[in-house]
Formats: sequence, C-alpha cells, structure tokens
Amino acid sequence: MPHLMVCPRQIHWTLTLVLGYLFYLLLGAMVFQMLEKQAEAQSRDQFQLEKLSFLQNYTCLDRQALEQFVQVRGTSCVWVPSYPGNWDFSNSFFFAGTVVTTIGYGNLAPSTVAGQVFCVFYALFGVPLNLAFLNQLGKGLSAHLLTLGRWVHKPGRAQVVQTLTMALFLTTGTLLFLVFPPMIFSYVEGWSYGEGFYFTFITLSTIGFGDYVVGMDPNKHYIFVYKSLAAVWIVFGLAWLALVFNLGADLMEKFLQLKWHKPGLGMTE
Amino acid sequence: MPHLMVCPRQIHWTLTLVLGYLFYLLLGAMVFQMLEKQAEAQSRDQFQLEKLSFLQNYTCLDRQALEQFVQVRGTSCVWVPSYPGNWDFSNSFFFAGTVVTTIGYGNLAPSTVAGQVFCVFYALFGVPLNLAFLNQLGKGLSAHLLTLGRWVHKPGRAQVVQTLTMALFLTTGTLLFLVFPPMIFSYVEGWSYGEGFYFTFITLSTIGFGDYVVGMDPNKHYIFVYKSLAAVWIVFGLAWLALVFNLGADLMEKFLQLKWHKPGLGMTE
Ligand SMILES: [K+]
Ligand SMILES: [K+]
Repeated sequence: MPHLMVCPRQIHWTLTLVLGYLFYLLLGAMVFQMLEKQAEAQSRDQFQLEKLSFLQNYTCLDRQALEQFVQVRGTSCVWVPSYPGNWDFSNSFFFAGTVVTTIGYGNLAPSTVAGQVFCVFYALFGVPLNLAFLNQLGKGLSAHLLTLGRWVHKPGRAQVVQTLTMALFLTTGTLLFLVFPPMIFSYVEGWSYGEGFYFTFITLSTIGFGDYVVGMDPNKHYIFVYKSLAAVWIVFGLAWLALVFNLGADLMEKFLQLKWHKPGLGMTE
Repeated sequence: MPHLMVCPRQIHWTLTLVLGYLFYLLLGAMVFQMLEKQAEAQSRDQFQLEKLSFLQNYTCLDRQALEQFVQVRGTSCVWVPSYPGNWDFSNSFFFAGTVVTTIGYGNLAPSTVAGQVFCVFYALFGVPLNLAFLNQLGKGLSAHLLTLGRWVHKPGRAQVVQTLTMALFLTTGTLLFLVFPPMIFSYVEGWSYGEGFYFTFITLSTIGFGDYVVGMDPNKHYIFVYKSLAAVWIVFGLAWLALVFNLGADLMEKFLQLKWHKPGLGMTE
C-alpha cells in the first residue's frame, strides 16, 4: 500500500504542477491562435469568394438554398462553411487541451505548417506533463479512498474492505463522471441522453472521434460556467477512467499470468 | 531492474495475448460492419436523392459543377458525398483499431444507436486489452535493450551504460518509428514529408485528429503490404512512444519531487 503523507512541501509542489499545467495550456492557446487565426480567416474569405462566383455563374440559385444544401450532414462530418472564426481564444484553449490530453477531436486542427510544427513540439512536452498531472490527481483520488478504507477497516477484514473500497471507487466515479454529466450535456446541446453518454465515454477514454463535441454549436451561446464545468469534468474524469483502464489492464495481465516483477497499481496493493 | 526470464510458458501466454488481441479486432470489425453498413448505404442514397432533387429544382446547374463545388476543402474537414462504401471490412477493422488504441481519427464513426452502444462496450474491454498488449510489447522492447545493456556492461560504469542504453532506445525508436515511416507515407499518399511527419506524430501520440489518415483516399488503390506495414508500425510505434511519454512524465514528477513511494519505469531502475 503506498505511503501517503500530505506535507506542506507536497502541497507546494502539487500547486506548482497545477499552475504549470494551466500556464502551459494558456501559452498553447495563445500561440495556436496567433499561428492559425490568419490562415483561418483567409480560407474562409476564399470560400466566400468561391461561393459568390458559383452563385454568379449559376444565376438560378439563391444563396440560402445553396447554404442549406451544403449543410446537409455528410458521411462522417458536417461541413459548415459559414462557421464563425474557429480560432478564437476560448476555442484555441480548448484545442490546446485536446492536444495534451490526446483526445484530439479534430474539429479544430492546425492547417498551417507553422501550426503543425508547433503542435508536434507542444504535444511532445504537453502529453508527459498531462500524464504527470493526471497521475498526481489519480493518486489524490485513490488517497481519499484509502483514508475512507482505513476508517472502516477492522482487523482480519482486509479483503472485504478492499473489495468495498473498489466498489465505491467504481460506483461513485461512474455516477459522477459517466451518468450525471450526459444529462447536462444532452440538455444544453440538444442531444438524446444516449448521444450524451456516447460523447462522455468517447471523450474520457481519450478516443475523441469528434462526431460530438460540446460547446461547438455556432448557433448556441454557451455560458462561461458550462464551459468551465466541462473542463473540470474532463480533467477529473480522465484521471478516474485512466485508473479504471489501468486496473483493467492489470487484471488482464494477472489473469494471463504475464506479470514479471511489476508492482500493481496503488488500488490493488 | 526487472527480473527478465523468457520461459516457454511466458511465450505461450504472450501468444495467447497476441491472438486474443487479433481476435478481438476481427470480432469488432465484423460487428461494426454489420451494424453500420446498412445505415451508411441509406444515408448515401438519401444524399444522392437530395442532390438529384436539388439539381431538378435549379436546372441551370449541372451535376459536375455542383460536386466540384461541394468538394472544396472546408474549415477542418473534407466533405466527400460521393465517397464509396466506408464500412467495408478493411475499413471496419481499421476502425476497431482506432477504438482500442484510443487514436479515434473520427473519419469513420458509428452513426446508428446500436453502433454507438456497441462502440462503448467495445472500448470498455478493448482499451485495457490494448494497454495490456502494449505493456507486454514495451517490456519486450526494453528487455532487448537491457540484454544489450548487459553485453556492454563493465563494473563501475552503470551510469554510463544506463545513459547509453537510453540514448540508443531514443535514437533507434525515433529513426524507426518517426523519421523513416513518413517517407513512405508521403510517397504513397502524395503528402509533403512535413505532413507525413505530422501525421506520424499525431497518430503515435494517440491524438489522432483525423485531418490526415493513411489508406483512406478513395481515388487511390492501396496494396495489402502497405496497409499491413502501417498496422505493424502503429502497434510497435505506440508501445515505443507510450514508454517515452511515461519516461517524460516520470522525469517531470521526479523533477518536481512529487514522488511518494512509486518505483520508476523499468528503463530507469
Ligand atoms: K484520440
Ligand atoms: K481523436
């Protein structure tokens, strides 16, 4: 069982990590916006010009009919030519988050060479930083559970307590990160609960197809609280589901008796 | 340093894991294809009908001009309405791979409720399976390095050997997984080397934006060897970059003196 002590120095370093993580995201948001905003505007202008010339060539068409036709859902992505400035600061920050967490929805992606080069280096340092951050968070989450475990601990009942702790970890996490959030998402985004749950799971597993993304409907106005809550949910949910997946992988390896000399996760010790 | 022995039983279990992994991917490919193929065909038919009725309403237009206009690059994704059957077996297998590895390009994603439900359960077991598989592969990769490390080992030079082993691990991996593959990808897909490298890194880091995906151009015929080599590259590259990222996270945590009681990675011990 890991030896857990929360001393002032640890709090100090944890704070450094949190602030460093936030700073890294803000820095990324600024650079990505700087690199992509102009190219974005140019490509949008170019499309508008192409549309105008198309409408002038085929005079029987009107703008509205063409736009409506073009916005029909494609095979795997919606084509929204009239989408307003994608790389505003909020979206750029969101994009930096999808890079370091490796979710990578892809609804936003750098199109300039400079943006792509920066993206590679940004991920090279950002992904380990995010891993370190989630590790700390995961340790924090399981530390609270271990304290709870000790509280109900009675001699000779170690196995029972361990199983109960695990059950509590799984059920509270499932409710908090997988069952409740889709209710809010589906309400705000106009999805079914099923679609909200699918989005929730695909996001927290870091698969991130990008077929459903919260806070991205250009016809909606999202309040700041909603976006912030979504960010908090992503960070804690990722840490939790990563622990669950690692636990699952550990169990599979144990089941296949493939273990050489590797101590298990904190939770299973 | 981990205790490494390769006995027949371990080979047996490793083989079980590899076969189980392959079986899981094939099963997923079959189910996804079954669930999505029909819906895919229907939505394609519906689009064709909409296009026809659009062309009939606006008679000044011809089909070719409309299709050319519609295929103009959008802000973040190409809209290809005339794309041939997406959910063939090869693509469905590829999709199953993007789910369990959490790359999730999103160029293919389930659109039916049944497909989405199956996708969640498929990932729930597939992601830990993939983690277990990559762990084993990572151990194998570092085991070979450790053997090599012992071969050049001289008493009192442990630090030097460790540094050399690490340097070798990083350089050979970088060449084999990050520097050479983009040459092939850019040649076959018609990308610049820079675009190929960007795709390579975004894939192996499991970010997977889906802005560049190999083997997906409907106008190209890909040979089987190319697709197979890409699959092998993904599997080994993922295991390697995951080790590198974990190493980076470990170094960051050590640097921030945040370590409680967790033994380091096999490579750093
Ligand atoms: K991803
Ligand atoms: K993705």
